Order: sequence, then structure tokens, then C-alpha cells
Amino acid sequence: LHSQPITPLPWLCTMEPAIDMLVSQFKTFAGKDGSSSTLSREEFRSLVISQLPTFVKNSSDPGVIDQLMGSLDENNDGELTFPEFWQLIGKLASKHGGFSQ
Amino acid sequence: LHSQPITPLPWLCTMEPAIDMLVSQFKTFAGKDGSSSTLSREEFRSLVISQLPTFVKNSSDPGVIDQLMGSLDENNDGELTFPEFWQLIGKLASKHGGFSQ
Repeated sequence: LHSQPITPLPWLCTMEPAIDMLVSQFKTFAGKDGSSSTLSREEFRSLVISQLPTFVKNSSDPGVIDQLMGSLDENNDGELTFPEFWQLIGKLASKHGGFSQ
Repeated sequence: LHSQPITPLPWLCTMEPAIDMLVSQFKTFAGKDGSSSTLSREEFRSLVISQLPTFVKNSSDPGVIDQLMGSLDENNDGELTFPEFWQLIGKLASKHGGFSQ
């Protein structure tokens, strides 16, 4: 599959649709209430429970969601921007991929 | 599709396979030569050309690759770690999704 890495691969094998999917799911959840470009605590909770069911353990525990949200919300306004959210999935990806932080 | 966000969605609709895909493609390219957990310049170039054909313009221009790599390689060792690489796709995702940085 990767013997000719210079040639663009079919779309299912490239990173772009995967990135698009993450952006589009973020927007779907961010658009549920209030600001459509940020995740409220409740939107974040819904997203984690339905979209990250195995990467985030004990997500039904409100304390887990609060702690996670607090660690990401850099300006402490109770809303997560896309770059703030991207940090979370980067950490989950690093952990899941076995990379040391 | 998202009327019951508390219920985990089928795997094709969740973020986890998309995250797994990004991790696994990073590892595929990082494993081509030298350190298997980081991208050399040549590995990064192959990845960008084949995996990010529309998100990164003019990637066949060596100057574009050098500039991109320089902006990401925080410790300037000529290798990109997974977190360094994650910053790039976060920027591409923000841009593609229309989020302001």
C-alpha cells in the first residue's frame, strides 16, 4: 500500500477524510446549544460519551468530565474551542499510540 | 443520527477510528527509516505528499516542506515527534474547518 508514498493514495487511505471527520463531529456537537463554534460542558460530555467511548474511561462520572474540561479550558470560560479540544484528542492519540508525552 | 448522543454510535461514526487511523499512518511513515517513533524530513515529505494532498499546497516544493518542518520541530533536531506532528494537523484542521486560530 505504501510502496509508492509519493503518489496520493485513494481517499479512504489518506489522513484528510479522518481529519475532516473529527472537525465535522466537533461542529455537530458544538452546534447543539449556545455558541456553535465552541463546546459547552454539556456538549463536551455528550461528545466524550458517544464519540470517545473507549479512549476516555468512566466518562459517565461527572467528576471525570469536569476534570478533563478544566484541564483543557485554558482561558477558563467554560467553553472549549477547537484548538483546546484538539489538545485532548492529541493526548488520547499519544496515549493510545504508545507515544510518551 | 445524534438524537441520542449518550448512546455510543457505530464505530464508523465515532471519532476513535479516525484518531486510530491518524496514529497508524504516522507510525507507518515514521517507521520507514531511522527512529521508528519520529518522522525524518524525508518521511515527513512522503507523508505530506501522499496523505495531505489537498490540505498542504505546493508540497512538491522542497521549500514548503522545509518551512513547515522548521515551524513544527520545536527542539530543532530534524525529527518530528507525534505531538509535534499533531500540532500541524490541528492547524490544518482549524483552517479547513474555518476556525480562527
